[in-house]
Amino acid sequence: MNMESFLSEDTKTALKNDPPGEWMPTLPDGCIRLSSGFPAPNLIPVEQLQAAVMRLLEEEKDLPLHYIGSPKMAKLKEQLQARLLRRGIRASEDELLITSGACQAIDLIARILVDNKTVVAVESPTYMEALEVFQNYTKHFISIPVDEYGLQTNKLEEILAERKRKGFPLPRILYTIPTFQNPTGTTMTMDRRKHVLELAAKYDFLIIEDDAYGELYFQTHSVPLKAMDNEGRVLHVGSLSKVVAPGMRIGWITATTEFITALAWFKKDLDHPFAQATMASFLERTDLEERLKTLRETYQEKCNVLLSALEQHMPKSVSWYVPEGGYFVWVKIVGVDTSEFLTQALDEGVSYIPGKHFFLNQQDGAEYLRLSFSYADQKEIVEGIQKLSKVIKLILS
Amino acid sequence: MNMESFLSEDTKTALKNDPPGEWMPTLPDGCIRLSSGFPAPNLIPVEQLQAAVMRLLEEEKDLPLHYIGSPKMAKLKEQLQARLLRRGIRASEDELLITSGACQAIDLIARILVDNKTVVAVESPTYMEALEVFQNYTKHFISIPVDEYGLQTNKLEEILAERKRKGFPLPRILYTIPTFQNPTGTTMTMDRRKHVLELAAKYDFLIIEDDAYGELYFQTHSVPLKAMDNEGRVLHVGSLSKVVAPGMRIGWITATTEFITALAWFKKDLDHPFAQATMASFLERTDLEERLKTLRETYQEKCNVLLSALEQHMPKSVSWYVPEGGYFVWVKIVGVDTSEFLTQALDEGVSYIPGKHFFLNQQDGAEYLRLSFSYADQKEIVEGIQKLSKVIKLILS
Repeated sequence: MNMESFLSEDTKTALKNDPPGEWMPTLPDGCIRLSSGFPAPNLIPVEQLQAAVMRLLEEEKDLPLHYIGSPKMAKLKEQLQARLLRRGIRASEDELLITSGACQAIDLIARILVDNKTVVAVESPTYMEALEVFQNYTKHFISIPVDEYGLQTNKLEEILAERKRKGFPLPRILYTIPTFQNPTGTTMTMDRRKHVLELAAKYDFLIIEDDAYGELYFQTHSVPLKAMDNEGRVLHVGSLSKVVAPGMRIGWITATTEFITALAWFKKDLDHPFAQATMASFLERTDLEERLKTLRETYQEKCNVLLSALEQHMPKSVSWYVPEGGYFVWVKIVGVDTSEFLTQALDEGVSYIPGKHFFLNQQDGAEYLRLSFSYADQKEIVEGIQKLSKVIKLILS
Repeated sequence: MNMESFLSEDTKTALKNDPPGEWMPTLPDGCIRLSSGFPAPNLIPVEQLQAAVMRLLEEEKDLPLHYIGSPKMAKLKEQLQARLLRRGIRASEDELLITSGACQAIDLIARILVDNKTVVAVESPTYMEALEVFQNYTKHFISIPVDEYGLQTNKLEEILAERKRKGFPLPRILYTIPTFQNPTGTTMTMDRRKHVLELAAKYDFLIIEDDAYGELYFQTHSVPLKAMDNEGRVLHVGSLSKVVAPGMRIGWITATTEFITALAWFKKDLDHPFAQATMASFLERTDLEERLKTLRETYQEKCNVLLSALEQHMPKSVSWYVPEGGYFVWVKIVGVDTSEFLTQALDEGVSYIPGKHFFLNQQDGAEYLRLSFSYADQKEIVEGIQKLSKVIKLILS
C-alpha cells in the first residue's frame, strides 16, 4: 500500500514544502531554557486554577463536561469582550471566536483565506510556527524586513508599488506581530501602524494581527491595529497563554461577523467546555488588571537582568534590541552562524533558538539568535548568559 | 471590502456546498431530549474528575499548565494503548495521535486525504457531522445503504464493480461506523467486516472506522475493523466522550506511523495539556472495566425502557431496529415526513432528530427519525415517547 497515493494534493504539496521534522534538539536535564517562550513557572496561577475547577464543578456539576450546556462558556466570551474593550477593540459576540490558542486561530484563518495561489506577506524575521502554518497552504511569500521600530512599512509600500507596476500578484494577507514581536521583541510605531492600515486599504489586503504579547508592556501600552481598523480588514488574534497559562489553550480571533461565521464553520474540534469554563471560573475571581501589573513588573525585571548580563558578559561584536515588553531579546553576532554552536551551548547547559528558524530564507538569520527571559528565573538568566558568552567567545576566538 | 474575494477557493466551494446554518431549533426549557447524543448526566464522573484535577496540580504543579512538560501526557497515551489492546488493536506510540474528540480526528483525516477530486463512500444514513466535515473538502460521494446488519457490503461491491467497469473514479475512502452505528444503532456482522476489508484491498481504498460507541455493547463485543487490518488500510477513530465526558475533548486516531506523522503535522492546535493530563490522572484511579460495566448495564436498561415504551405507545405503522449497544434507536414511520412535526413535538416537550439530516440525499431520510436513550432518565424516556406518540398519532390520523 502506498500512503503517498492517498494524500490530498494540498497535503502532498505542504509536506513537500516543509516536511515534518524537529528543529530543536531535546534539551538536556538541567539546561537553562533561554529558548522557551513559556511563562515563568511561578507566575502560573496553579492554586487559583485548582480552586476555579472546584467552584465550577460544585456550581455547574456535569454541565461543563458535556458538549454544550455550561453557562460559563458565554461568560468567558463576555470576559474576553471586556478585556478587548480595555485595549480599544469593540467586538460583539458574533465578532469573536474562541480558539484553542493562537496557533489554532492562525491555522483557521489560513484555512479560510489561503490557497496555493495566495501571496502572503510576512515580517522578516517572524514567528516560525505561523510560518509553518502558512506554508501548509501556499508557497508564495513576500518578506518585509523588521527594524527596531517594527515592520518597515516604507519597504512594504515600495514592494507593493513595484509588484503592481510589474503586474505581479499582490499579497492578499499581511501577517504581523506589531507589539513585542516574536522573535525581535520590537514594537511598530504609531506612524507605521497608521501607514500599514492605509496600505491595506490602498492595496486591498487583510491584516492578521498576532497580539499574543500586547498586554505585557513594561511602561507604555501600544494601540492594537484592530482598534484603528475602520474597514474590517484586521483579523486580531489573541491568547491567554502568555498571561494565564498556555496549557489551558484559550485563544481567540476578533474579526467581522462574516469572517467569524466562516471561521467557526471550519473549527471542527468544537469548543472545549471544560477548559473554557474553568478559565471563565478563574477570571470571575481574578483581578486581571492586578495580575497583569505583577506580570509586567516581573518580566521587566527579568528582561533587565538579561540585558545587564549581556552588557557585562558578551563580547563587543554582539548587539541586541532593547524590548519594551513581551518575552524576547533578539541578538546579533556579526560574522557567525548561530546554528553552529547550539550543540556546544546545550552541552554547556543553556539553550537559545538560532535565528535562521524565523526566516523564510534561513540564510538571512544566520547571525541572529532569540533569547527568552520569560521562563528562567533571574539567577538562571545570569548563569545562562555567562554560559552562552563563554561559548560565543570561544567561537569568536 | 468584499469578504468573498479573500476566501480561498476551497473555502468558497465548501461554503457553497454546505452553508453554515443551524439544523436544530433551540430546545424549549424542560424539553425531554431524545435528540441529544450526550452521555447520561448521572454517569459523568464529576467528583472523580474534580479529584483528578486536585491530585494532578498537587503532584505536577505548573507542568500541565505549560505547552509541554507534563509526564501525564505520555501516561494518557499509554492508557489509551492499553485500552486499545483490550479491543484487539495493537498501536505503538507512533501509531496513535490524541485529538480533541472524534470530530477533530475526522477533520484531520479529511484534511490529509480528501481533496476536491476525492470520492468518499459513506454509509446511508450516516453521522451528519462527519458528512459536513467531508463536504468541506469534496462533493463526490457514494452512498452505501445500511440495513439491520450494518453496511451492505454486497451493495458496496456491486457499486465498486460497476464503477470500475464504467471507468468511473473509485472511492479512495470509506467512512463507516461499524459498531452501534450513528444513527441506526446497527452493527456490522463479522462476515461483512471481513468482506469490507477484502474489498478495501481489492479496490485499494482506505477505511475510516469511527468507533465512538464500540465499548458500549449490551452483551456481545464486536471486533473492530482495525483489529483485523493487516495492511494498514484502517484509520481507527475513538473517543472518551461517550465513556467518560465529552467536555474533556479527548479522542484519538490509530493508523500507520506514516499517516500519524502527516496527521500530527496538520494538527496545529497543539495538544491540550490540562485536559489530557486531567484525563490521565482520572484514568490512573479509575477501574475503567468496572465503569464500562456500569455504563453498559445502565444504557441497556434505558434502551429497554425506550423500546418498551415504543411497543406500548406507537401506532402499528411505526417500526425500529433493536440496537445491541450504543446510544440510538432508529425509527421508521411509513408515509410521513418526520421533519414536518418537529415543531409540534418540541411544543409538546420532546425532541428527536429528523432522519433527513443523516442522508446525503435528504429525501431518503424523510420517513426516519433518530431517538437517543442516553441522556434522558428512564421516567423522561417513557414520558417522551408518550408525547411523541401523541404527535405522531395526530399526524397519521
